[in-house]
Amino acid sequence: MSQILKGMRVVESSAFVAVPLAGMTLAQMGAEVIRFDRIGGGLDHTRWPVAPNGQSLFWDGLNKGKKSIAVDMKSAQGKELITRIVTAPGEDAGLFITNLAVKGWLDHASLSQHRADMITVTLTGDRQGHPQVDYTVNPSLGIPHMTGPEGYADPVAHALPAWDVAAGQMVVSALLAAERNRLRRGTGQDVTFSLKDVAAATIGHLGLIAEAALTGKARGKSGNALYGAYGQDFVCSDGKRIMVIGLTERQWLGLVRMTGTEAAMARLADCTGRDLCDEGARFALRHDITGILKPWFAVRPSKVAGQECDKAGVTWSQFRSIPEALAEDPDLSEDNPMFRVLNHPGVGRYPVPGSPLNFSGYARTDPVPAPALGAHTEEILGDVVGLSDTEIAGLFDAGIVQSAAPRRSCRTAA
Amino acid sequence: MSQILKGMRVVESSAFVAVPLAGMTLAQMGAEVIRFDRIGGGLDHTRWPVAPNGQSLFWDGLNKGKKSIAVDMKSAQGKELITRIVTAPGEDAGLFITNLAVKGWLDHASLSQHRADMITVTLTGDRQGHPQVDYTVNPSLGIPHMTGPEGYADPVAHALPAWDVAAGQMVVSALLAAERNRLRRGTGQDVTFSLKDVAAATIGHLGLIAEAALTGKARGKSGNALYGAYGQDFVCSDGKRIMVIGLTERQWLGLVRMTGTEAAMARLADCTGRDLCDEGARFALRHDITGILKPWFAVRPSKVAGQECDKAGVTWSQFRSIPEALAEDPDLSEDNPMFRVLNHPGVGRYPVPGSPLNFSGYARTDPVPAPALGAHTEEILGDVVGLSDTEIAGLFDAGIVQSAAPRRSCRTAA
Repeated sequence: MSQILKGMRVVESSAFVAVPLAGMTLAQMGAEVIRFDRIGGGLDHTRWPVAPNGQSLFWDGLNKGKKSIAVDMKSAQGKELITRIVTAPGEDAGLFITNLAVKGWLDHASLSQHRADMITVTLTGDRQGHPQVDYTVNPSLGIPHMTGPEGYADPVAHALPAWDVAAGQMVVSALLAAERNRLRRGTGQDVTFSLKDVAAATIGHLGLIAEAALTGKARGKSGNALYGAYGQDFVCSDGKRIMVIGLTERQWLGLVRMTGTEAAMARLADCTGRDLCDEGARFALRHDITGILKPWFAVRPSKVAGQECDKAGVTWSQFRSIPEALAEDPDLSEDNPMFRVLNHPGVGRYPVPGSPLNFSGYARTDPVPAPALGAHTEEILGDVVGLSDTEIAGLFDAGIVQSAAPRRSCRTAA
Repeated sequence: MSQILKGMRVVESSAFVAVPLAGMTLAQMGAEVIRFDRIGGGLDHTRWPVAPNGQSLFWDGLNKGKKSIAVDMKSAQGKELITRIVTAPGEDAGLFITNLAVKGWLDHASLSQHRADMITVTLTGDRQGHPQVDYTVNPSLGIPHMTGPEGYADPVAHALPAWDVAAGQMVVSALLAAERNRLRRGTGQDVTFSLKDVAAATIGHLGLIAEAALTGKARGKSGNALYGAYGQDFVCSDGKRIMVIGLTERQWLGLVRMTGTEAAMARLADCTGRDLCDEGARFALRHDITGILKPWFAVRPSKVAGQECDKAGVTWSQFRSIPEALAEDPDLSEDNPMFRVLNHPGVGRYPVPGSPLNFSGYARTDPVPAPALGAHTEEILGDVVGLSDTEIAGLFDAGIVQSAAPRRSCRTAA
């Protein structure tokens, strides 16, 4: 049951997606991850989606396999406890990740006074330190402007917190890089970056900033078309919609052969003077190409069309809702070794993902559910801080710490 | 000019986003990254967006700071050269990342015969090894189904290859975790994972699979609204659109105070019997809330509304296109130390991002442009493979390798 990061201890102070995801990714690779929260739970303790009983499925999803301690951090004693947990000795400890504004007692300089080789990774909203979320970063960088149906006037938001997800994975990389460096040089590291910089760098890496700077033009919306080559959605005879990809030359030629549209494509190339083996020409002529391909899909049920795609080596998929995907796709079931169906008391059974990563030297381990808030308070105070049972009892009596608090279904009113 | 991963050598065989992004991320952290391609360039060598002269801005964006070698891999000599580059000795070498189907001479088992502690990270499309792209993964997992304006019937695609970006960062984490393990135990590692599993795991982590399993219902489209709490776009008196966030209680109460809508919100709470400090109630009542807030934004120019938000501690941003963002936002200029405006001969000048990560122990280094295809062929054959000048000349004469090929503006017809 050993895993590749076994022995590493990471402490996390976080809310919402990025850093919780980072901590969970490390936990699913075998690290001991301690998340600490204020008593009653942090900002994301009731975040939607929620189960019918009100419990946050979001919190349960992003805190799997962690240890949880709940501490009154307004008290001096609470601050001292947290400092001792974060800076506890151990070659593979002294690792702290956070996306909460931690100025003062929890910042890198303060922690380094307790442990000189401390590694801290801090994610902020923007580089000035203000809060930002995907919902604000995207509009400011032009993403909703280029999302949505062709001709639709208004900006359209992504449904996924994509930058949060990417930033969370970068917290993991940054931590591992800094720890690699510490192992060789013995030095700590204060790593900082922002969600907005992750987004700005990524759109630069994808060529979008260069495109805007060189052409001065905003990329228009292109609906469900694959940008810059060919890829389009088609409605089949059973009313189901599938996505078909002609990105590479092999995929494109396979698509043309499969649909028997060689002659029509040759006529289109002749009329327009464009070579359809040039991926850019396929994008420019996508509406004509779609017009040629449409009848083939319109007379075939989606299942048959998909089977033909498989035979022809054409990359494709079916559009569906998440419940439909859950019902139909073995990749979201225990047929996929990444998933295990777990029972969550009071909530129900559902498939829970482990890490997508397969390491040849380590057998896959089953995903471990999220702890109840404070479930490991006692254990951590004993094992990590080294307190006696009497000292721990005193902290509980004084209300400085809390164990396994009942889940709240919603925040109390202000 | 040293960087945190200096001394590490990674070899990359790739196309498109995920693995090129992973290699570039490692290069921007100081690793020596060698990307090898077939003569004439790989599948992504002309990928859009392209510059007015036809050069791929996508390729230039995702291969910054790497070394490039072009080799005829159909020849036995070419295969041997690549094997020697990938498995070359060095404590910090023997690291290979790929998203191309490498069965046979380039797979982990074959490479391990040349270097027993070889680390290989392979990203496939799905867990069965088939090609998949964001454009197919998203429909199959229900993302376009929940994206787009409320009431819009058809699925709406994301404009960003979000899974590719996340998977690329996971290639980095997986490589660093495997190398950390090798440093301690001396063992190599064959790491495999798939784009679709990254997506499936992530929607699970975000609670979307649990939600679908427990309710059986598909999450509907919610336009530009923030899901599960309050956040909405508003058109200001100058016609510009801004996004305003009331996710946390602090943001929400700030928004109500700023707009002076306390009484109206109290009436809404009374009429509905809901507590607006419950984030879920804010989402359920978002249309009513938006109706109450709208007049405040409608009479203020976006600049004034933004200033008020800043004063009130309300998180917000402005909708704009990428060219507008480039013109207006200092975060996309050299005011942001992450960006440098570089001149690309034959293409033009534009802001180029370095790594978003700031390591306290290492000064930020300027981004390095992508190489021309094959620009380092000679250097790599000499320094890494250890060939003599005569041997290298022989390889060029035989057409087994190519140096600094002229950029192609489009693929030749099949």
